[in-house]
Amino acid sequence: MKIKSAEILCVGTEILIGDIVNTNAAFISQRLAQLGINQYYQAVVGDNPARLKDAVSAALKRTDLLIMSGGLGPTYDDLTKETVAECMGRKLILDQRSLDRIKNRFAFREQCMTPNNEKQAYIPQGSTIFDNDAGTAPGCAVEDFENGKIVIMLPGPPFELKKMFDQSVMPYLKRFTDRRFHSVNINIFGMGESAVENELKELMQGSLNPTVAPYCGDGEVRLRVTASGESNEECRRLCDNTVEIIKKSRVGGYIYGIDMTLAEAVVSGYLSAGKTLATAESCTGGLIAKRITDVPGSSEVFGYGAVTYANEAKIKLLGVKKQTLERFGAVSDETAREMAQGVRSLSGSDVGISVTGIAGPGGGSAEKPVGLVYLGVSSGKQTRAVRLLLSGDRDRVRILASGSALSEALKELKAII
Amino acid sequence: MKIKSAEILCVGTEILIGDIVNTNAAFISQRLAQLGINQYYQAVVGDNPARLKDAVSAALKRTDLLIMSGGLGPTYDDLTKETVAECMGRKLILDQRSLDRIKNRFAFREQCMTPNNEKQAYIPQGSTIFDNDAGTAPGCAVEDFENGKIVIMLPGPPFELKKMFDQSVMPYLKRFTDRRFHSVNINIFGMGESAVENELKELMQGSLNPTVAPYCGDGEVRLRVTASGESNEECRRLCDNTVEIIKKSRVGGYIYGIDMTLAEAVVSGYLSAGKTLATAESCTGGLIAKRITDVPGSSEVFGYGAVTYANEAKIKLLGVKKQTLERFGAVSDETAREMAQGVRSLSGSDVGISVTGIAGPGGGSAEKPVGLVYLGVSSGKQTRAVRLLLSGDRDRVRILASGSALSEALKELKAII
Repeated sequence: MKIKSAEILCVGTEILIGDIVNTNAAFISQRLAQLGINQYYQAVVGDNPARLKDAVSAALKRTDLLIMSGGLGPTYDDLTKETVAECMGRKLILDQRSLDRIKNRFAFREQCMTPNNEKQAYIPQGSTIFDNDAGTAPGCAVEDFENGKIVIMLPGPPFELKKMFDQSVMPYLKRFTDRRFHSVNINIFGMGESAVENELKELMQGSLNPTVAPYCGDGEVRLRVTASGESNEECRRLCDNTVEIIKKSRVGGYIYGIDMTLAEAVVSGYLSAGKTLATAESCTGGLIAKRITDVPGSSEVFGYGAVTYANEAKIKLLGVKKQTLERFGAVSDETAREMAQGVRSLSGSDVGISVTGIAGPGGGSAEKPVGLVYLGVSSGKQTRAVRLLLSGDRDRVRILASGSALSEALKELKAII
Repeated sequence: MKIKSAEILCVGTEILIGDIVNTNAAFISQRLAQLGINQYYQAVVGDNPARLKDAVSAALKRTDLLIMSGGLGPTYDDLTKETVAECMGRKLILDQRSLDRIKNRFAFREQCMTPNNEKQAYIPQGSTIFDNDAGTAPGCAVEDFENGKIVIMLPGPPFELKKMFDQSVMPYLKRFTDRRFHSVNINIFGMGESAVENELKELMQGSLNPTVAPYCGDGEVRLRVTASGESNEECRRLCDNTVEIIKKSRVGGYIYGIDMTLAEAVVSGYLSAGKTLATAESCTGGLIAKRITDVPGSSEVFGYGAVTYANEAKIKLLGVKKQTLERFGAVSDETAREMAQGVRSLSGSDVGISVTGIAGPGGGSAEKPVGLVYLGVSSGKQTRAVRLLLSGDRDRVRILASGSALSEALKELKAII
């Protein structure tokens, strides 16, 4: 059988009451897109057998692959397997191999296995079982080839689901697809969504293969170029052509990377230029360093970061002058520049980046409102500061400020190489 | 009319292809839970008029309040208002006030308004309009009191949606509810979900009001206690009783806070004890400092953080001995202790916390595998180190390590006060 479309059904009252964000749906969606399996619908239901049954039946009327997550746990309200088994007329039977794996997992971690964990080894009869290398509950695919339906059940914890999906579910699903899809993300900083769309309107509306779709968030715009074809090579060629067109447009000057985050662009840029970077953060409190060190291999370009939340720390660690703080304040052009200079000389890095600002909710004044942020940049060539007036709550001000700092780090790199 | 149940329908192909995580649904769900409005179902559809229409019609058959997000933007594929207007037999008409607000917004930011932004000021006739103070697209509620249905449409960008919801939608919805709900989160660190449930099984299964539900993530377990009643006071009293029972159980010793994150517990704990804290981070690269400074007011207890990714930085900033690094390595009990001591004396803080480890994906060896992390803790009373062997990818190792560090910071606080 060939899978034409899929739906995702996530099970868990904790999603419906907003206790957790449904990251599993986003992850599964990405993988389905890679496989070229269309998805038109996603849903969430609680741990309620009747509604769960309705949702499964409704989905199986619309689609041929249903991927479910959640409700495989050891607790009494985990009912996904029971419900799907009923919907598809199967019995739950003990899978000895899965039980042994669960037992071994507890033994290995020198933990005591509670009796409710046994329930996780019961699987609908005749299923393909997916081992769980990151937790206890195995996943499974219940196949009904006669009616052209497959239901895949995966554990709810994102870390378990992701590992299982990439290890077992991707190879399993590839058997049921032939068309290939390929996407390229063009990452843009410093130009708004409306402006990008206005610039590329004809391309975005007129192009069917590849398609070009904008996504906007955290002060960044991403254009996703997606092509379909019979081979990966064909898809890639189609995408590359469109990327070239966009690079040549007015948007081109704002592109900082292809298929990478701002922090990845910074790390790879500094890495290939053989330059190093250090950070001195006040209001972002470590977020810039965190974003840089999110990137594996960042230790090659980033050795030092200072979180100087207190004025005293700015003086002691970075050598900011007491007079500067007294005369201009901690949130000022002058302090930002001295912080950047300070962390650069302290660390011996090629570029020093600093941030000082008022993230809120408190601490603002008429003269220096919440959202006022100064970025400092210091290199062998120059020391400069950038003034930003950001809107949003504490989280957003910090995210936008750290994004701008990373963008300035990239700009400065271009100036010195 | 009184609202009995609600559904959430998020619109956006970018959600279906996994480009963004649906945080709006989680946010709206939390607010609905606070209002005591039950939610049994959530869905996502793409920017496709026919499927969008089907989803709206299906939802309105099951529920009396439908909250939608997304598809109010300026671009050609934003079709939510058009589709809902058709489903509910309304015309879209220009709202001059909204148009003026959009124009002013562009003028204030000295940006040029592109013509496609005008589309955002067209609203289904007879709607209640919700101003957008964080973006351009207004929200609205289309009311059909005859059939007991309300459809609320909100902008997709999370920052705009959240601000609008709390400012305008919450007061609007309160008119249509009378029952009150109240939830309390009990935050637990250091005890697994299965163990917690085994301990509290009877309470969790037997209790209907309040209900007790576990949620597990990032190495933490949260128990959510939810009561319903006719007044907030009644709900609170019911919750408090159950919280007391749980505090007295074996789980009690692992509770670090009520309704707070680990970082919030650290900040409020140090604040009320009048103590200060400093961090020295290697593999977590600023994440601990970031989590602490996520909390407004953290500057009172946290002045200094060092991100010492390079060995040289550990020596220069923290005074870690070169011999220690050579003899035991950067990832060792000894280095962790010297880092913690170093940042404590550098900053003059009461407690110094350090982390050094191998977050992966590279850098592991048979002797020191990926996931090996040492935490250092230094106070006036003692200097100690904790060895952790964490499983998971880079992100997860960093999150778990930072969580354990925060937990150790709390433990040390108890030891010194």
